[in-house]
Amino acid sequence: MRILVVPSGFKESLDAEQAAQCMREGIMRVMPLARVHTLPMVDGGEGFTKALVKITDGRLYEAEVTGPVGEKIPSHFGILGQKQEKTAVIEMAAAAGLRLVPRNMRDPRKTTTHGVGELIKLALNKGVKRILLGCGDSGTSDGGAGMAQALGVKFLDTNGNEIHIEGGISLTKVAHIDVSNVDPRLQHVQIDVACNWFNKLCGENGVARVFGPQKGATEEQVIELETAFNNYASVIENITGIDVREMPGSGASGGLGAGIHALIGAKLHPRYDIIMKYIDLDTLLAESDLVFTAEGSIDFQTPRGKIPAEVAKRAKQYGLPVVALAGTVGKGARLNYDYGIDAYTSILPMPSTLEEAFIHAEKWLRDCTESAMRTILVGYQLASRLNTKGWVS
Amino acid sequence: MRILVVPSGFKESLDAEQAAQCMREGIMRVMPLARVHTLPMVDGGEGFTKALVKITDGRLYEAEVTGPVGEKIPSHFGILGQKQEKTAVIEMAAAAGLRLVPRNMRDPRKTTTHGVGELIKLALNKGVKRILLGCGDSGTSDGGAGMAQALGVKFLDTNGNEIHIEGGISLTKVAHIDVSNVDPRLQHVQIDVACNWFNKLCGENGVARVFGPQKGATEEQVIELETAFNNYASVIENITGIDVREMPGSGASGGLGAGIHALIGAKLHPRYDIIMKYIDLDTLLAESDLVFTAEGSIDFQTPRGKIPAEVAKRAKQYGLPVVALAGTVGKGARLNYDYGIDAYTSILPMPSTLEEAFIHAEKWLRDCTESAMRTILVGYQLASRLNTKGWVS
Repeated sequence: MRILVVPSGFKESLDAEQAAQCMREGIMRVMPLARVHTLPMVDGGEGFTKALVKITDGRLYEAEVTGPVGEKIPSHFGILGQKQEKTAVIEMAAAAGLRLVPRNMRDPRKTTTHGVGELIKLALNKGVKRILLGCGDSGTSDGGAGMAQALGVKFLDTNGNEIHIEGGISLTKVAHIDVSNVDPRLQHVQIDVACNWFNKLCGENGVARVFGPQKGATEEQVIELETAFNNYASVIENITGIDVREMPGSGASGGLGAGIHALIGAKLHPRYDIIMKYIDLDTLLAESDLVFTAEGSIDFQTPRGKIPAEVAKRAKQYGLPVVALAGTVGKGARLNYDYGIDAYTSILPMPSTLEEAFIHAEKWLRDCTESAMRTILVGYQLASRLNTKGWVS
Repeated sequence: MRILVVPSGFKESLDAEQAAQCMREGIMRVMPLARVHTLPMVDGGEGFTKALVKITDGRLYEAEVTGPVGEKIPSHFGILGQKQEKTAVIEMAAAAGLRLVPRNMRDPRKTTTHGVGELIKLALNKGVKRILLGCGDSGTSDGGAGMAQALGVKFLDTNGNEIHIEGGISLTKVAHIDVSNVDPRLQHVQIDVACNWFNKLCGENGVARVFGPQKGATEEQVIELETAFNNYASVIENITGIDVREMPGSGASGGLGAGIHALIGAKLHPRYDIIMKYIDLDTLLAESDLVFTAEGSIDFQTPRGKIPAEVAKRAKQYGLPVVALAGTVGKGARLNYDYGIDAYTSILPMPSTLEEAFIHAEKWLRDCTESAMRTILVGYQLASRLNTKGWVS
């Protein structure tokens, strides 16, 4: 019996790896000889690099790069294991994450992705052939211009003078972009970016309007940023012919998606599509009999790109049964029965507050996984008992 | 696929029949062609007669009898269907229940089981051959003397004068008991009493000490009652040779167990043993593939005679898998894995208060049953997929 455990984290209580561990323990209580493979799922945000390095048995590298507010900060990137082509993994949040911006400096007009470019350079120095870049938890909104500058792209004003990119606000002045001096090694390296596919650079649902306020922008600053992005997008279109304004993923991590695609040649991807490819989820599914997944909540939003639904979608291509565990089984959860999740259940054993659920999350997830596994065994044994066909109507 | 649903009620939110209905609906959502048999389980207390009449497709009879405080009250008894021998079902609470004692008259020294004897007489009038008497929810503590008197037993004082039994307090004066005029039809009728097996007439764990206060007795009255019961037990022993003082079940329903056994010849039984026999649980189990049970709580107390454990014990004699659903999966629930419950789960879908759980109990039980059934199907389908032996370790 080969069981694949692919949970998300449970917001505010368990990270994906803790969740995976609890689920493994719950299964092993019932089936100590089962082959359980855990694959904690993360989005491209904080913890992405470490998780992928761990999953693939790769290597983590410490680094010092320019932080979002311009000071040097300790950072890291990874080289994945188990890959034929040397492959780096980078999370943008490790160089430009919101957590790295001191609260009193949270002005998204003035934070930069310069350090992300530096991490890419460090990866290139390792001779990698591919780079997986994770977006999420960013503290910047510079359209990826800081990152591009670190890789040799030049931003010029109307007088032809180079602009030092200090943040999104610098994009207002950009009149021309010169990509002729971009790091030549990039030509031979494929960069795949794991984006939130619904984030766009400009417009009503663009970076400035949607994320500006989260990163500390006032209403006035939001308008300023939106103007800057529009100018940036126009210049990019002039130079490259690419319209990034409403391109899916272009708004990922404060517009990093736009810059890295148009100026550096990276490919943007819906995040789980590309992450699951890099961790060879397909290979693992092909070798499994049963899949467990989990997330803090299972509800009507789950089919819209949340991990349990993404996992289920792929598992169903292999005809695998999928059981999902959640802290909250919320409104519209039934929808998920149509999206490849065969059964779901809440880990809560009794009336309790959200705080109690946080405190006991590990024990409850472990117990609930055991209980689900026992219930599955009931069905398994029924099948041998009945030894008949067609009773499932 | 034949599924037997045998739930208890969920205290303060669902009675057993509502619970059974919800569970049936949950199963049918997943397996509309399954043969689902529901058997709501009740103890001998309030609702017992109606539940058994319904389960066996029997008949309910209205009646007027003497209530616990001496006034005439509407009551009822039943004749079970599906029985070879004509069989009555009576719940003592329908004639002497605590709910029938006005709050300002709650003095257990002065409430009588006279009406229970009248119900037995009415059943005899129907020509029954067996009577199943349910104990529980009583408002009396007269050692069953009122009931016995209604059936012809005479209680005499030291002067040989007959005592009219007004309640437990009357037992103090009993010096002799004359059973020669007891209703002769009782000789040919078997009365089975469904008792709480741990209730005893006398002593530290006796009726007076344990239940007196619940029924409204002061500390002084408790002592008075205990003295009365000891006298009653002595006279019973003199006349019949039976020592009812610490006999299991003798304390059921304020000592009704003692009186009906020693003076009327009824058999006392642990309640679920006899109830499950009367509803032919064994026959139903023999015809089932899978058993669902439920109760408000599953915890360390469940194996001590609660319905899910009693059901599981019997199901295991037929090798049937048992899944238990509960509002609260509490401390020590794991114990139940050793008592025939293969898997249990809480019906709670999210953090919530006890009040919310009460309000949503029906929906949540329905959804949880569906979820459990779906999880069972995952195992069933796995079995056909794997088509291997021995992976269950």
